Amino acid sequence: MSGRAWVFGDNMDTDVLAPGRYMKFGIEEIARHCLESVEPRFAAEVRSGDIVVGGRNFGMGSSREQAPQALKHLGVAAVIAPSFGGIFYRNALNLGLVALECADVGRIRAGDSIDFNPVAGVIDNRTTGERLKCEPIPAHLMAMVNDGGLLPHLEKRLRQS
Amino acid sequence: MSGRAWVFGDNMDTDVLAPGRYMKFGIEEIARHCLESVEPRFAAEVRSGDIVVGGRNFGMGSSREQAPQALKHLGVAAVIAPSFGGIFYRNALNLGLVALECADVGRIRAGDSIDFNPVAGVIDNRTTGERLKCEPIPAHLMAMVNDGGLLPHLEKRLRQS
Repeated sequence: MSGRAWVFGDNMDTDVLAPGRYMKFGIEEIARHCLESVEPRFAAEVRSGDIVVGGRNFGMGSSREQAPQALKHLGVAAVIAPSFGGIFYRNALNLGLVALECADVGRIRAGDSIDFNPVAGVIDNRTTGERLKCEPIPAHLMAMVNDGGLLPHLEKRLRQS
Repeated sequence: MSGRAWVFGDNMDTDVLAPGRYMKFGIEEIARHCLESVEPRFAAEVRSGDIVVGGRNFGMGSSREQAPQALKHLGVAAVIAPSFGGIFYRNALNLGLVALECADVGRIRAGDSIDFNPVAGVIDNRTTGERLKCEPIPAHLMAMVNDGGLLPHLEKRLRQS
């Protein structure tokens, strides 16, 4: 499965992802304004399976869960960045959104077709043919992400026990 | 409660925190070698309640849980850094170790007496009188950290339900 890359710069904070003035609305409305201050076309044109590539400190700035939730709602398959705000990173995985730390995001251009394998720690740029390394996510954690996040994962585990 | 600061540079990876060649031993032995390649005195001289201050990408490099576990075992009260490896950050909170993101760690010197309030998002340097901002950790997450981490927290919650 590969997705098209949308590329953003450093310090995309949670207010850019989930703008404060829409926080009183539900996630559908918040998602409609996700990243609009830097890329007005994003929410309308992003397709399910697309990839968001960010710069340093992606998701910094607040513990707002709606930030990763908005990306997930829009069908984003993964966020790739050299570093993440800690709470954003935590929330992303807990909500079932893949977040990959990769120092070489500069090798990805907007529109490139990107594949990724979080457990192996590799990102393949199908457009350029390049393979990039990313920090692997342990299989047990990816099991949680693939179940849709922490709560669905715990529910599944409790049903099985 | 305030602790003495131990100050480290950028990119302290999980292998510096929990050296690979001791991974076959238990956490007590691993902790004895924590950070020894950059500060040989650390493990022997760190006191319960002390603070570890790091640079960028603290805890990068692997999903090794023994990295935050070693710091916790040595009694470290908190790690403060401008950015963390995502899995390290996640593991730290899950294991009951406070991790604070603070852009201004350069204002803290080795030996300074440091207080912190994760929910308020403030760090007080009692030695210099300066107050630094850090990313707040939501109260519900600090409840988990204060219970000793994710597993003790879930056990407590399940006992109560």
